[in-house]
Amino acid sequence: MRELFPWTGNAYTVGFTGPPGAGKSTLVDDLVQLARAEGDRLGVIAVDPNSPFTGGAILGDRIRMMRHTVDPGVFIRSMGSRGHLGGLAPAAAQARDVLDAMGMSYVFLETVGVGQSELEVAELADTTVVVLTPGLGDSVQTIKAGIMEIADIFAVNKADQPDTERTVADLKELLRLDSRPRSWTPPIVKTVATAEEGTTPLWAAVHEHRRHLEVSGELSHRRRERMARRIVEIVTHRVRHEIVGPSAETPRFQTILDEVVERRTDPLTAASKLQEGRSR
Amino acid sequence: MRELFPWTGNAYTVGFTGPPGAGKSTLVDDLVQLARAEGDRLGVIAVDPNSPFTGGAILGDRIRMMRHTVDPGVFIRSMGSRGHLGGLAPAAAQARDVLDAMGMSYVFLETVGVGQSELEVAELADTTVVVLTPGLGDSVQTIKAGIMEIADIFAVNKADQPDTERTVADLKELLRLDSRPRSWTPPIVKTVATAEEGTTPLWAAVHEHRRHLEVSGELSHRRRERMARRIVEIVTHRVRHEIVGPSAETPRFQTILDEVVERRTDPLTAASKLQEGRSR
Repeated sequence: MRELFPWTGNAYTVGFTGPPGAGKSTLVDDLVQLARAEGDRLGVIAVDPNSPFTGGAILGDRIRMMRHTVDPGVFIRSMGSRGHLGGLAPAAAQARDVLDAMGMSYVFLETVGVGQSELEVAELADTTVVVLTPGLGDSVQTIKAGIMEIADIFAVNKADQPDTERTVADLKELLRLDSRPRSWTPPIVKTVATAEEGTTPLWAAVHEHRRHLEVSGELSHRRRERMARRIVEIVTHRVRHEIVGPSAETPRFQTILDEVVERRTDPLTAASKLQEGRSR
Repeated sequence: MRELFPWTGNAYTVGFTGPPGAGKSTLVDDLVQLARAEGDRLGVIAVDPNSPFTGGAILGDRIRMMRHTVDPGVFIRSMGSRGHLGGLAPAAAQARDVLDAMGMSYVFLETVGVGQSELEVAELADTTVVVLTPGLGDSVQTIKAGIMEIADIFAVNKADQPDTERTVADLKELLRLDSRPRSWTPPIVKTVATAEEGTTPLWAAVHEHRRHLEVSGELSHRRRERMARRIVEIVTHRVRHEIVGPSAETPRFQTILDEVVERRTDPLTAASKLQEGRSR
């Protein structure tokens, strides 16, 4: 990282997030095609916190990207939850940096699922595309989990299904209800990824958002803010890991928690005990 | 804390949160009246992260609670953002514990505003009442900031204003769209706190939610989970404070951030530098 990092900062990162089954992989695949047609080299990172596997391109959904796996202009990497001691989001950030340093024009960052770690991964993107499908009932959990805040563009995929207009209307309503001041209103693009429909307008929307960020100066501001959060995140993640382990479920933590719940010690003493006991 | 803590665990904590101007203080005042009529002693903690002041009862909105300030069965405490080196949420948790140990039957925890620290404070409650007002446009930012997830009961206050039914319908729609499985559906109670209207049904809803938590065994489960988060929070807050100061804006952090942004160092090295440099 120390040697690679000086060569980073040039790739433009586009995040794709949304519930499982929304068709993100196919959509990303379509956009890879469009970007390649423009002559750009690019990297694709597919993050699935629910998968234990980390490795190459031949993994579950990735099979759909087979048409690009033999293209030397496209590098595809899947990342699961295992083997990233520093946390999945920092690991994804590093993978992104490697592709950036390799001279890729774009890095596509696809995250499966809608939990906190996916949001953290999505936070690495310059432009975030939230992929939803008709039938907002299934997706609204996504929206409420904070995805509304991070969406720069909405893609309503599988737009050949009934209920598409209802979902678009629901999204418009949610945007209307949002009273925060904004300089960019997220466009809603209807796509049918399997038929490559709507993907050209979607790719155009990404370009437009990028222009908006560059012209307004927001891009460098956002990147600096993100870097600050990333550094603080690395530090607190390391410390949290040192103290409670990868989750709060370590036996040592449970023992101390039991003591507090049973009122044999208090939370501050418990915290000090955990801090003192770590191996530094 | 060490000596007080064994006496805690008996008070029932009710959180009140929502945007400024929703009438939370008046509503809390009404419920204090109802709880006192049932013979219960109680504590009220009013947290305002935007206020620099911490202290007694005579503070801004607190004046509305004057009718209870001379009642020895009610203890009122305002907390602002200053003077809580461990963070506002942990400080509020300690104040709640003190009132709990004092033998109060209830602790009412009122939080002003809708930011992250308010959510953390609301997280201390057994039952959380989200107070909104007609004209959801003003309040929906609240809902999207994660308050939907924490609401056990909705109070639509100032329900004598126009648009009340629209707001209630909007809330019902948001609840309907929420596909997560739940054992408790948050009731929506219309109130006019200034006229003491709807406050008896609201207080009954609090009792009903409490019974639900107790009968289902969720109360002790929730409290244990909360305690785990509280301990981890104390530790990470201490560490974060040691490293980057109360905010990320310390000159030392900015200098290191500049180095990263200008690619003179990398995020991992920057994190280590921050960790090594702290005064332990």
